[in-house]
Amino acid sequence: MAELSLDKTATAAHDKTEIVQSQSKAQIVTPFDVSGGVDESGKLLPVNYDKLVAEFGATPISPQLLERFERVTGRKPHRFLRRGIVFSHRDLNKILDRYEKGQSFFMYTGRGPSSDSMHVGHAVPFEFTRWLQDVFDAPLVVMLSDDEKFMHSQKIEMDDVRRFSRSNAADIIGLGFDVKKTFIFSNLDFVGGAFYENMCRLAKKITINSVKGTFGFNDSNNIGEFHFCATQAASSFATSFPAIFGTDRKKVASIPCLIPCAIDQDPYFRQCREHAEKFKFKKPSLIHSIFLPALQGPGSKMSASVETSAIFMNDTPNRIKNKVNKYAFSGGQDTAELQRELGGNTKADVSFQYLTFFLEDDEELARIKKAYESGEMLTGELKALCIKELQAFVKDFQERRAKVTDEVITEFMTPRPLSFRGDVAAEKK
Amino acid sequence: MAELSLDKTATAAHDKTEIVQSQSKAQIVTPFDVSGGVDESGKLLPVNYDKLVAEFGATPISPQLLERFERVTGRKPHRFLRRGIVFSHRDLNKILDRYEKGQSFFMYTGRGPSSDSMHVGHAVPFEFTRWLQDVFDAPLVVMLSDDEKFMHSQKIEMDDVRRFSRSNAADIIGLGFDVKKTFIFSNLDFVGGAFYENMCRLAKKITINSVKGTFGFNDSNNIGEFHFCATQAASSFATSFPAIFGTDRKKVASIPCLIPCAIDQDPYFRQCREHAEKFKFKKPSLIHSIFLPALQGPGSKMSASVETSAIFMNDTPNRIKNKVNKYAFSGGQDTAELQRELGGNTKADVSFQYLTFFLEDDEELARIKKAYESGEMLTGELKALCIKELQAFVKDFQERRAKVTDEVITEFMTPRPLSFRGDVAAEKK
Repeated sequence: MAELSLDKTATAAHDKTEIVQSQSKAQIVTPFDVSGGVDESGKLLPVNYDKLVAEFGATPISPQLLERFERVTGRKPHRFLRRGIVFSHRDLNKILDRYEKGQSFFMYTGRGPSSDSMHVGHAVPFEFTRWLQDVFDAPLVVMLSDDEKFMHSQKIEMDDVRRFSRSNAADIIGLGFDVKKTFIFSNLDFVGGAFYENMCRLAKKITINSVKGTFGFNDSNNIGEFHFCATQAASSFATSFPAIFGTDRKKVASIPCLIPCAIDQDPYFRQCREHAEKFKFKKPSLIHSIFLPALQGPGSKMSASVETSAIFMNDTPNRIKNKVNKYAFSGGQDTAELQRELGGNTKADVSFQYLTFFLEDDEELARIKKAYESGEMLTGELKALCIKELQAFVKDFQERRAKVTDEVITEFMTPRPLSFRGDVAAEKK
Repeated sequence: MAELSLDKTATAAHDKTEIVQSQSKAQIVTPFDVSGGVDESGKLLPVNYDKLVAEFGATPISPQLLERFERVTGRKPHRFLRRGIVFSHRDLNKILDRYEKGQSFFMYTGRGPSSDSMHVGHAVPFEFTRWLQDVFDAPLVVMLSDDEKFMHSQKIEMDDVRRFSRSNAADIIGLGFDVKKTFIFSNLDFVGGAFYENMCRLAKKITINSVKGTFGFNDSNNIGEFHFCATQAASSFATSFPAIFGTDRKKVASIPCLIPCAIDQDPYFRQCREHAEKFKFKKPSLIHSIFLPALQGPGSKMSASVETSAIFMNDTPNRIKNKVNKYAFSGGQDTAELQRELGGNTKADVSFQYLTFFLEDDEELARIKKAYESGEMLTGELKALCIKELQAFVKDFQERRAKVTDEVITEFMTPRPLSFRGDVAAEKK
């Protein structure tokens, strides 16, 4: 497993470099800005996830925890877990404790709908969440934070964001979620009632100061951007969803939440965890993934607003092929001859990284790694393998997505009891 | 009329005083802090309303505007208008234009429920609003900002504020509103849907900076306190209430709002007026009242959290008598002999000010003023007249309040079409 893990300490060498008069910039990771930083020579650096986890105060997922996961659930860990793509957590042990005892919990993840189609980077945490839902048989709530996307962007209008929400809901459904266990909601439609009450509880505890520190906002940001911290965190509490869990507040307050998300979303839940027990609610647990790098290379993430940075979930096979061939940053040598002689760098090679995300077969991945690093495999061959995997992933998705009718979207987006395992029975229909 | 007007420039003399080394403090009026300031000798000053209106950029209500009001509506102006208690406005003319042409508009006022019972100071804008509703035959929405009261106070818990909301709704109904024309809502229950959408539109336009300047907040305030600016302003738009006005957005967006409120609430609506037209909504109009002073004297307002500062709407006749006799600041002389010789100061006398608010008969008020200022009337006699008026006002209220059942409260608080005059017909039940 260690051999297949992504290199999360690629910048370690740079940390030891003495700072000279330089253009270097430190790593920044917030929900609004992801950059691994720039070294003294102006070179973009990959995100240093180990450093990030230490700064955030989260816990790396250890081999022991993975062993326990496998023992408790009886399932081989997902390739994202095996390969360090899902790499850190907060209180995942508590969720495994509950699973072991047959006690209930629910899951929560979300998406800021900023474009008509999601890209494969967006699909990563959802793919993992879908797998967890299957493993845990747990109900899932999915927030579409259209309110925040509207308030954060000068360009995006209300009509745009409402269209994005509906369309992204269809994309998420197309990733294979179980309608009996999944509630997808648009904040613009859903905020209110018990959910709004919990937003107010959280908002009362979160000062302007603390948001500035965590998210890099200043006094020119609008009040909606600040207030969204309470909105995103409110979904961590089962009491926010009486239609799903019922109205017996005391019983419902005892159901904790597991939040699978990309690491940049972690700050939203730190204050939430700090205050949960004051509200007599359970602290949410988290499990974090790294970012799928942009085609241009590590140290960034795919962006929906930069067409050439991302493979979109509605791209044609040909478009995928052209984008990878044209834009995917290569870790290979400048000529075939040099590649044969020196081999390629899989740590820098975006095509290889994508294979790490999407190729299921561990042995095949190890074989490719060895062949590319030894120079046996050329960049063109590696890209072809990457293109094949991406095309297959996107094609599977598109086939499911095509079957998502308006009625299906409405069903997923209707507040209702969900089916789930554990000691707290849902109110069945 | 001029003779009966409250003195709104009592501090003018002080403005000319040269500033020496002093304890003087400037006037502060925000929704959270009302003080006329302190002069060099440490004496509390009455609120300088003329200065305030000039600072806020509102317009004093002129005799010409009052004449037009009487001509257009066919009604003698309310004693609050005749006596400068309702004293300034923004775009009241536009509302009179619409009334004249038979065009629709609606009214909006509100209350922050901070205690189980309202006091007579809270009743002043509602008494005026009830009269306006009768004159204009206009529908009214009343916001109970329980969310804000919860988020702003460390002491107030969710259960408290929900109880206050229900109880204050009953108090408001007890002031005589017409159920066919009135919708009262608790933010904790009502925020959502079209209302929340308008909150987001407003929140996007309001920066942290602008709230700090206007409300005196800093980085230690919580995000809920800042965000409430969008919540309070959202009620200014008819599109926030599809249950009342229907869902034809274009038609509904053309219905403007008249907001009767105490002058300290004006800042909430300035940014709202600035941005309304960008949303293709109508700018709200406002009509402002001064504060009923606390028993302790001008330069303050009654406070629900200081029992001895206020006459509560649930006080017994005896309690009213004792409070006025014991606490009402007197403008009279120290002895009966001096009072006979020098006369009393009606501008400083709280009992006389309360008569200005609550005694309907202009001639009787003029007679009392003359008698007290000339020394013919002693403080005890003036207090007795004030007590009689307050007791009558509170007794009338308590009789109506006793008839407000739970069913009646629920009826007022149910979103539904309202009956109103004008060119935009409500969707009748």
